Amino acid sequence: MALIVQKYGGTSVGSIEKIKNVAKRVIRFFNEGNQMVVVLSAMAGQTDRLIQLAHQVCDDPDRRELDVLMTTGEQVSVALFSMAVKSMGYDACSLLGFQVKIFTDDFYGKARIHNIDTTRIREELSQNRIVAVAGFQGIDPHGNLTTLGRGGSDTTAVALAAALKADICEIYTDVDGVYTTDPNICPKARRLPQISYDEMLEMASLGAKVLEIRAVEFAKKYNVPLHVRSSFKEEEGTMVVAETKDMERVVVSGVTYNKNEARITVRKVPDRPGTAAKIFDPLFDAGIVVDMIVQNASTQDITDLTFTVSKPDFKKAMELVRNVAEEIGASEVIGDDNISKVSIVGVGMRNHAGIAHRMFDVLASENINILMISTSEIKISCVIEEKYTELAVRVLHDAFGLDEEPKEE
Amino acid sequence: MALIVQKYGGTSVGSIEKIKNVAKRVIRFFNEGNQMVVVLSAMAGQTDRLIQLAHQVCDDPDRRELDVLMTTGEQVSVALFSMAVKSMGYDACSLLGFQVKIFTDDFYGKARIHNIDTTRIREELSQNRIVAVAGFQGIDPHGNLTTLGRGGSDTTAVALAAALKADICEIYTDVDGVYTTDPNICPKARRLPQISYDEMLEMASLGAKVLEIRAVEFAKKYNVPLHVRSSFKEEEGTMVVAETKDMERVVVSGVTYNKNEARITVRKVPDRPGTAAKIFDPLFDAGIVVDMIVQNASTQDITDLTFTVSKPDFKKAMELVRNVAEEIGASEVIGDDNISKVSIVGVGMRNHAGIAHRMFDVLASENINILMISTSEIKISCVIEEKYTELAVRVLHDAFGLDEEPKEE
Repeated sequence: MALIVQKYGGTSVGSIEKIKNVAKRVIRFFNEGNQMVVVLSAMAGQTDRLIQLAHQVCDDPDRRELDVLMTTGEQVSVALFSMAVKSMGYDACSLLGFQVKIFTDDFYGKARIHNIDTTRIREELSQNRIVAVAGFQGIDPHGNLTTLGRGGSDTTAVALAAALKADICEIYTDVDGVYTTDPNICPKARRLPQISYDEMLEMASLGAKVLEIRAVEFAKKYNVPLHVRSSFKEEEGTMVVAETKDMERVVVSGVTYNKNEARITVRKVPDRPGTAAKIFDPLFDAGIVVDMIVQNASTQDITDLTFTVSKPDFKKAMELVRNVAEEIGASEVIGDDNISKVSIVGVGMRNHAGIAHRMFDVLASENINILMISTSEIKISCVIEEKYTELAVRVLHDAFGLDEEPKEE
Repeated sequence: MALIVQKYGGTSVGSIEKIKNVAKRVIRFFNEGNQMVVVLSAMAGQTDRLIQLAHQVCDDPDRRELDVLMTTGEQVSVALFSMAVKSMGYDACSLLGFQVKIFTDDFYGKARIHNIDTTRIREELSQNRIVAVAGFQGIDPHGNLTTLGRGGSDTTAVALAAALKADICEIYTDVDGVYTTDPNICPKARRLPQISYDEMLEMASLGAKVLEIRAVEFAKKYNVPLHVRSSFKEEEGTMVVAETKDMERVVVSGVTYNKNEARITVRKVPDRPGTAAKIFDPLFDAGIVVDMIVQNASTQDITDLTFTVSKPDFKKAMELVRNVAEEIGASEVIGDDNISKVSIVGVGMRNHAGIAHRMFDVLASENINILMISTSEIKISCVIEEKYTELAVRVLHDAFGLDEEPKEE
């Protein structure tokens, strides 16, 4: 008998019919002798509906009250799901964040889980009940409702799996696993049977929308095996697990891209201590996240500084940087939002030399100009002109042989 | 400085615009130096939407889970209201049933309040906050969500007012008070400036849809002064208060009617002990509530037995009674669902003789036949043919001078 935590996203519970299907699937697992804890998101569309209501009240709704509003979405899902299970002749019980006792800090809208009391869940499981937990929500030390931010239900599921020492945490979504790249761009994209936490983290932060980063971080920290799979298909998806020796044989596991960045170059910046701070401080103060930063080696104490921000922040960032540029004596500020970032990810890179060189060669062979480069231990990212994104993804996917199953050595 | 509990019904918070208006009204009271606790219902239409969702899952949704679902309606209201208040520059805080700590029994769907912990509310009030409490909901001893049944938000408001020893409990609704009779039937109907708890209870159970009976019972028990008024007008409504000497001067306070009953007559019932039980037991077992019961004086040990049930129960009741009639040797069972019950209510009846007689005279003068009569200390009800309902209400209203302000003696 295994203890399984399953999470179903908004699309998977997007209608009463779909909720009934999820109930049937969960009952099947239950009938195989497993203890089932099911984490549900709000029905697709509901979260948007609630946000819209709040914004009809005022432009900047109070964060505490926004969380009180938003948590109703998941509450509706778990109630309907539990009704469905019961109407099929099995026992079920819905639990909200405050009933499980999922304790968080009080950062409304993006609270972090501090700890989870598993007493009530274990009690319900011991009564042979299927337990449905509302995702995305918790309570702060004063009993106020909180939400965990984007992808919060993934985090709820992983945190519950960790707290319950579950055998596995299955994330059901509308895609059937993690692919070597976006199948919409590259028809040869192949579903990965498994991937390491670190690779998944890089893939998630680079634009693959399968799992939320915080959930993966949590899974890595507590070593929770994740299974990403489709709620509309029966076949297995992708296991996200701790890195094994075996994984290092594969040099590149995936190619990702992100079209949501824009590039800002500050030309002829006097290379003095404190100049970078002067440029970036106003951005940080405005809550603008800077991703890549590149500074050329300075010539005659003058240098060019280039960095990227997300596209929605681009206009505001240009404005802030232009203000500073004059002050520090830079010659000009150039902005470009027709860029994208293409990356290759793989734990195998740690032990294989020349991967970056090969990536640059592949792009060059298609006359794709590289505008910026940044690297980590297990990924290499190149900023290129946006129009070459799809081409770059396809040629990299081919060049690193991602369409083929890795050969046994 | 007064402590005021206000309750706003579903129509009063039926749109974002209306919620903002309620916020403005509450702020005005707050600015006059009052501590404000506001109980809100679900936005009009939401409760029906949720019930519909549940019935799409199955015909008879689990009661515990139905309560989990239903409570989201009021949760949305208090969140949006608190956002509105805050956006207007005042501090507010929403509290759900489990946060206030409104403890109930575990009769899901129609739970009764056991006790209310006022600590959290007092804490928020002392911070100069307007407190918005979700109506209709509580938690049972195991922390499960419960709802209080129809009109539950009225009960929440009155119970909170009692627990907080509030100076007054104002019930805002879409009518502007309690009238001498239904203004839709009788244009001369006059709004009562005040009415006693007992009269209100008779009016409520006889068909006036202003306040839920349980809320009035609660108010009477804890002597909470109620003020029923409109959320769309400024003028005062009706005070529902403990009976005063002064009230007895008025003989009849109101005329009510109820078209939702049907009459069943069992002819020639052998007048033996246990016969009545044989007729009514199957009805009780089927959960059918019998309202009026009349038994004629028996002639030659044979009697006629007449009683009323609500219209939706009529068919089922006829079926059950017909089964028994044969068994007990009654001659026939006659049903009639073209009836209505017209009543006059007033605490002054206790000290005035001949009121019943006058009522019968008034109806007779219009050739309205009285089919059944029942009386209590402060009301007289007559069952008549349904088609005469409006006429009867108008002539009674006139005859007892209800269109005129009571004269000072």
